Amino acid sequence: MTRTPLPGHRQRPGSTVVVERDADRNPRIKRTVLPGGLRVITEAVDSVRSASVGIWVGVGSRDESPSVAGAAHYLEHLLFKGTAKRSAVQIAEEMDAVGGELNAFTAKEHTCYYAHVLDEDLPLAVDLLCDVVFDALFAQRDMDLERSVVLEEIAMRDDDPEDLLHEAYSTASLGEHPLARPVLGTEASIKGMSRTSLRGFWRRRYAQERMVISVAGNISHGEVLRLVRKALGERVDGDRAPRPPRGGQARISTPPRMVLRCDDTEQAHLMLGVRGIDRHDPRRFTLSVLNAALGGGMSSRLFQEVRERRGLVYQVYSSAACYADTGNLAVYAGCQPERLGEVAGVVRDVLDTVAADGLSAAELARGKGQLRGGLVLGLEDTASRMSRIGKGELNYAEHLSVDETLDRIEAVTEEEVAELAATLLRRRVAVSVVGPYAHADELPNQLHEVVS
Amino acid sequence: MTRTPLPGHRQRPGSTVVVERDADRNPRIKRTVLPGGLRVITEAVDSVRSASVGIWVGVGSRDESPSVAGAAHYLEHLLFKGTAKRSAVQIAEEMDAVGGELNAFTAKEHTCYYAHVLDEDLPLAVDLLCDVVFDALFAQRDMDLERSVVLEEIAMRDDDPEDLLHEAYSTASLGEHPLARPVLGTEASIKGMSRTSLRGFWRRRYAQERMVISVAGNISHGEVLRLVRKALGERVDGDRAPRPPRGGQARISTPPRMVLRCDDTEQAHLMLGVRGIDRHDPRRFTLSVLNAALGGGMSSRLFQEVRERRGLVYQVYSSAACYADTGNLAVYAGCQPERLGEVAGVVRDVLDTVAADGLSAAELARGKGQLRGGLVLGLEDTASRMSRIGKGELNYAEHLSVDETLDRIEAVTEEEVAELAATLLRRRVAVSVVGPYAHADELPNQLHEVVS
Repeated sequence: MTRTPLPGHRQRPGSTVVVERDADRNPRIKRTVLPGGLRVITEAVDSVRSASVGIWVGVGSRDESPSVAGAAHYLEHLLFKGTAKRSAVQIAEEMDAVGGELNAFTAKEHTCYYAHVLDEDLPLAVDLLCDVVFDALFAQRDMDLERSVVLEEIAMRDDDPEDLLHEAYSTASLGEHPLARPVLGTEASIKGMSRTSLRGFWRRRYAQERMVISVAGNISHGEVLRLVRKALGERVDGDRAPRPPRGGQARISTPPRMVLRCDDTEQAHLMLGVRGIDRHDPRRFTLSVLNAALGGGMSSRLFQEVRERRGLVYQVYSSAACYADTGNLAVYAGCQPERLGEVAGVVRDVLDTVAADGLSAAELARGKGQLRGGLVLGLEDTASRMSRIGKGELNYAEHLSVDETLDRIEAVTEEEVAELAATLLRRRVAVSVVGPYAHADELPNQLHEVVS
Repeated sequence: MTRTPLPGHRQRPGSTVVVERDADRNPRIKRTVLPGGLRVITEAVDSVRSASVGIWVGVGSRDESPSVAGAAHYLEHLLFKGTAKRSAVQIAEEMDAVGGELNAFTAKEHTCYYAHVLDEDLPLAVDLLCDVVFDALFAQRDMDLERSVVLEEIAMRDDDPEDLLHEAYSTASLGEHPLARPVLGTEASIKGMSRTSLRGFWRRRYAQERMVISVAGNISHGEVLRLVRKALGERVDGDRAPRPPRGGQARISTPPRMVLRCDDTEQAHLMLGVRGIDRHDPRRFTLSVLNAALGGGMSSRLFQEVRERRGLVYQVYSSAACYADTGNLAVYAGCQPERLGEVAGVVRDVLDTVAADGLSAAELARGKGQLRGGLVLGLEDTASRMSRIGKGELNYAEHLSVDETLDRIEAVTEEEVAELAATLLRRRVAVSVVGPYAHADELPNQLHEVVS
């Protein structure tokens, strides 16, 4: 398989390139840049009867100012409420009638509108998604109706201790940085948001040069292009190049700290982590292997030490997140409140040991096996493939083939993992706790020691 | 495609039959009954590179007496703790090394141990699962360790308002019937369970005639049979026929009522439903269509009335459950506590209207479309296919092909839906509420009216 000849933002508007070929040298992934800067990237999968379509917009909660906190997510809701061609109920009816899935999600750095349908319903999926993203009505009445729905979603989030824990961890780790802002916004910001400010956010941010349409399944690139051009009509115009991927270096002004959210829960929920690396860092494959071996599976160091040897928790795992300009590596554990100190101590010991000694060859081999299996098994799912190419285009604009990715994972050495572990796991930890503790001084001493 | 010649429990031990052929008349689903009464059913899917393997045991929480409440689930945990051949950590390591997924779940009427692996790792998946299910060590030390893990899982469930709501609804709807018992058991039953009683439950219940091994993916039936025979060795012996599917008529002695669980949540969670039909009832396809059109999708009557027109909730949906001898049709909604009365009233109005007038032809067409799309899209996933044939064998012992199922759905008429709606939706409702209400008299009047 060949490397993509050039990244998406350097490709000439109006042109199409082959991003990846299969073993017989037939094009499998193709990208076209339309004149307005919109990228269309597709992956043909002959063995399925379905198609997944996504419109990826490089806009997320980190792009909001505090006064419009939650705008990206509110917008995602509102766009489904009706377009020039279709009412909200027609949008829902047309998709239900063919048994497809139509939905969207908002993250810190992007928003994705997607559909999963039978291959014969591809024209409907493309038309519906483009209609929603480019042609929403944005009526005041719909905005008010949807405001209550978003407030319900915030209330639901607040009833989920793990969601609360993640929000608290973002604050513990990133302070006032925009990345720490909750995707849903706050009750106050949602209640206070005007149609003018939300519409302004939409008009400014949803530019074609920040968007990628990705499609995977039993489709042809030509057919997808034809459908997109038809749906967008005169909007396929201009002479703009796609935006390059986000990058830079996050300016985080506050040191990591501990954030407690008191909640009358049966379990105490703990998240404890360190600053990691950004997604452009060449060590990202090393980080994947480190994370898998540390806390990714049932045989991982953390699962074995915390759950299997000691029976202290039902769930314990680590997770690594890489953003454009920073990242984190964090451990989650949920336990009886009286065990919180012990759990925090064991987790801290595991991290210290791995920082000092790295991981064994057997652990790394299993971590690699896990990543390999997960990657290959995930390829059977058109939604995963659609995400891989869509998010990849937005985040990197260059694409590694599956084989190249597997090679990069395989190439990670024990020394690289040990070096990265020594660097990251000695950093100062951020900690968040959700549990039945009214004040930080009710938390066990062992937890305070872990933070200091 | 042909119908299966005979149900699994009537098939001669030692024999193999073709359950379903593809369009070219090649066998696609085959079933063998082994001498001990164990059924092996496989579905060959050439277009994938993976395999899903499940061992289905026809034992669940409804088979427990109150003194061993939670035994089926506790057992499911314990079996992974080590076998004659492998320690718990070896089990985890072997699966992580190939990047597969190994897990299990327990339900009211069955327990399933499953793995999803690359096709080349099929031998490992079969060997591991058989080892765990048939050859667990059952050490006292592991039982005590795993007891804390199960207690953590109970605490976690108690922190999830929707889980609590479901448990409360079971009690509201089924009273003291064994089907109402929580799958996880209670803190007291788990703390009090001895190794002798749990082991006895295992020995008595995990008989081969109550088990089905189902495999879907890039596999051959012969290869799977060879691997199962190798893993089970001398256990493939005897002259027992498989158990016929569960049936009968549930004796539920208490009328539906209202159950409130006070919890300091932001949202009030409501579940409201009626007794439904069992899985052997020929009206089950009618029920699927009714449920889809009533509350299955974004265009459903409930979603449109409660969320889209009034913005009262983030989530509202209906769900239909069919057990061996009873069933239910219930509506879930989550809303601000001060809107609970209004939400309950609107839901009740929708149910009354559908009971009186049925659903429109357009609504039914969308409901059918939704079921059709969901079914066909689900076939791309080997885990769904493995579940379909494994659970189908346990529940019916006869199999409808996908085309037959689609035909049955298509054949449902407006009159059948209206008749079933009129029968079910006029039944007395069971209601459960989780929310910030200390006593039932703090609940809004409208809710009390709905119940009466």
